[in-house]
Amino acid sequence: MTADSKKEKIAEIRAEVLKRVRPTAEEKTKLESVRKGIIDDIVRIADAQGQCDILPLSVGSAERNTWLHGNHDIDVFISYPEDIPEDEFFQRSRMILTEMAKTGDTWEDRHSEHPYIHIQKEGFEVDLVPCFRVKSGAEIKSAVDRTPFHCAFIKENINGLENDVLILKQFMKGIGVYGSEVRTGGFSGYLTEILTIYYGGFEGVLEHASNWKYGVVIDLADHQSLEHDNPLVVVDPTDPKRNVAAALSLTKFALFIDRARAFLKNPNLEYFTPKEYLPMTADGFERTMAARGTELIGISFQTPDKAEDTLYPQLFRMEKSLEELLARNEFTVVNTFSWSEDDKESIVFVELLNTVLPPLQKRVGPPVWNENNAESFCKKYKNNPATFSFAIENERYVAEVPRKYKTAEYLIEDMIFKEAALGRHIRDSMKNGYNVLREKEIAEIQNEEFWKFMNEKLTAQISP
Amino acid sequence: MTADSKKEKIAEIRAEVLKRVRPTAEEKTKLESVRKGIIDDIVRIADAQGQCDILPLSVGSAERNTWLHGNHDIDVFISYPEDIPEDEFFQRSRMILTEMAKTGDTWEDRHSEHPYIHIQKEGFEVDLVPCFRVKSGAEIKSAVDRTPFHCAFIKENINGLENDVLILKQFMKGIGVYGSEVRTGGFSGYLTEILTIYYGGFEGVLEHASNWKYGVVIDLADHQSLEHDNPLVVVDPTDPKRNVAAALSLTKFALFIDRARAFLKNPNLEYFTPKEYLPMTADGFERTMAARGTELIGISFQTPDKAEDTLYPQLFRMEKSLEELLARNEFTVVNTFSWSEDDKESIVFVELLNTVLPPLQKRVGPPVWNENNAESFCKKYKNNPATFSFAIENERYVAEVPRKYKTAEYLIEDMIFKEAALGRHIRDSMKNGYNVLREKEIAEIQNEEFWKFMNEKLTAQISP
Repeated sequence: MTADSKKEKIAEIRAEVLKRVRPTAEEKTKLESVRKGIIDDIVRIADAQGQCDILPLSVGSAERNTWLHGNHDIDVFISYPEDIPEDEFFQRSRMILTEMAKTGDTWEDRHSEHPYIHIQKEGFEVDLVPCFRVKSGAEIKSAVDRTPFHCAFIKENINGLENDVLILKQFMKGIGVYGSEVRTGGFSGYLTEILTIYYGGFEGVLEHASNWKYGVVIDLADHQSLEHDNPLVVVDPTDPKRNVAAALSLTKFALFIDRARAFLKNPNLEYFTPKEYLPMTADGFERTMAARGTELIGISFQTPDKAEDTLYPQLFRMEKSLEELLARNEFTVVNTFSWSEDDKESIVFVELLNTVLPPLQKRVGPPVWNENNAESFCKKYKNNPATFSFAIENERYVAEVPRKYKTAEYLIEDMIFKEAALGRHIRDSMKNGYNVLREKEIAEIQNEEFWKFMNEKLTAQISP
Repeated sequence: MTADSKKEKIAEIRAEVLKRVRPTAEEKTKLESVRKGIIDDIVRIADAQGQCDILPLSVGSAERNTWLHGNHDIDVFISYPEDIPEDEFFQRSRMILTEMAKTGDTWEDRHSEHPYIHIQKEGFEVDLVPCFRVKSGAEIKSAVDRTPFHCAFIKENINGLENDVLILKQFMKGIGVYGSEVRTGGFSGYLTEILTIYYGGFEGVLEHASNWKYGVVIDLADHQSLEHDNPLVVVDPTDPKRNVAAALSLTKFALFIDRARAFLKNPNLEYFTPKEYLPMTADGFERTMAARGTELIGISFQTPDKAEDTLYPQLFRMEKSLEELLARNEFTVVNTFSWSEDDKESIVFVELLNTVLPPLQKRVGPPVWNENNAESFCKKYKNNPATFSFAIENERYVAEVPRKYKTAEYLIEDMIFKEAALGRHIRDSMKNGYNVLREKEIAEIQNEEFWKFMNEKLTAQISP
């Protein structure tokens, strides 16, 4: 493909993608009207309560005109003067939120450290978040106080690149790197917008990303004040200490580089549609596992009643910890992954080359000249009638001893609470019971979403 | 045990060991007479040939009074003026050796780069070695020229410690670290003598060795002129560049430290007798392997017609290389060892935790930002219908591909000539044919020495 025909092709793709992702005039009108209603409600309620110093602030992609068709999120912040005491902030914001909850079709208290509610209203998902009206993003009193600055920064600097943001977001969705929640570990909306501004548009982002390496630093405001050890460092233009890309995982960073490069080589509309996996059938699963010849072990337990962003770090840590436990005992892990469903079960999977080992285990001890450790190693294994042999190899004592964990399942059952790093909520749930599943038990799971997930995990192919 | 009773015990042990290892008066007289006869023969032959500038030199432990009872080695060097041309040296030394060969009961040409013959005479093993009469050990023209200097140094400095040398040598024989040939990788006689002189006797050597660590340096003459990366560095008092302990392996160095420490804690005559292993029976072998549960593979071929010091480095390299080849392909090696018998077969063994692997192999490719390597990895595995999956993990491409080598035997047979580092002589021999032996074929080997060797390899226990 010549450079010119590529340009043409990309222009066509841009037009087609925009057609799909730009909100319709009708959508916009609807959103405007709902948003206006919410802001009016807040002002009315605050006035009635004598809270005349609050300010409702529309933030989020809707405000910035960078929202995708079909996305029905509205974020409205309620800002308080920064010098009011925390007690007062909590008490007064609760008063408003209590009344606002009544204006929704449904509502949900979502506060963790910070008060906030979520309401559904006329088909929109609305977050209502009290915050402090601080002087700058660097002087925040709570994490949410930054958001209004982000919103203002983008509005001031977007300069007609709204469509490029939409296209880039959809590209990221299509290749599976959009979303900064822990489970995804991808790009946040704000990060996508900053990249678009910094590189002057969708194509600019892809061209530069093609040449990214670990540790690339982007500092629009040229005010970085902290080093970060992350694949991508995008210094927050509203806070010199913060890396906007801190939540981006290495895998998603690398995947974006690969996909950017591939798209520019051969532009194609396919990149903009997330891949759909059909549910695997029981037969298909059996055939797949027979072809792989590997051994799958799943550890299932009741999903802790926690937000995904609390649960997923614990699931990921458990995967890593199981892999290390197994490797220390000479079982070779090829893959780990986690399935989790709210109110139902979570399953942490490990896929192994082998689940059975011979009775002999070779233990490599300390060097001869490390006298204290040598003594305790010798005490344990020398002249021990159970050992197969006791010798010196290179500088170290080595003992061939009877292996304690001859199967991966026994190792897991015996050591999971002792040697695996389990997060608090997973540990609590597992204490109430857990199951170790093998292929047969896994095959019995009845859940279409689960089998789509398994299909993706066992057959994923980067393409095009 | 108190310090005093230990001292007493060691004194008793010394006396008993000396009784066993000191040559008898009869042995000494016999050796003296054979040695004198050889020197007279050399002088007579040289005179008859008009070679009046040569000097016969008795070297070796016999000359130093540090030879062990039962050892019937005599080393006689024939030294030439250092300024004669090489041609003349070769021609004239051949003349003498040819005549000397006739004085032996049997004789053998052992020259490699350097001319030398071995004769048997009246029950003695005699090495006859021509050399140059150089000015110092640092100015040698050939490796053997150093020996007369070594002999002279020890004679001048031994100062009545001959018995300590005998006891130390026997201790080293008993624990299996005596002998500087490659197969053993232990302490040479000269090294043993220097250690005895330096540390003032047998007990002094053991006491200091107890605290040795990798890299200890001993420099009697305080004239070291080269750094050496060896476990033990003993600068040759006759050559500042040479490490007398260069041939000492890390394993034998560490074993000596361990045994020295153990002996001093609990002195015992046992240390002075090499351990004897009974030959393993076919039944015993089968039971041992069943208990270990591991898999043994032997690669057997005709022993190359070479000196042990040429062959063993090649056997050891082959062990290491096989281990690496297997590990690269996910087979876990626990032990390797080599059996070799002159004029018969050599067998290189690998003992494995597993010899069968599942069809799926996970190949970890280059990082995404290593664009050239990434391209060739993707070309090979992406959109390849044979792959199970193709993805990105962390910064790298990973492909799950069909495993080529699902059994260790097939891997060995297919790759041994391509990827294993085979020494020239082993390669030549294997090109003429080799066999891959499994437990069943190994069990059929009829050879008592082999089964003693196997017993040692499969059941060794450091003791006492």
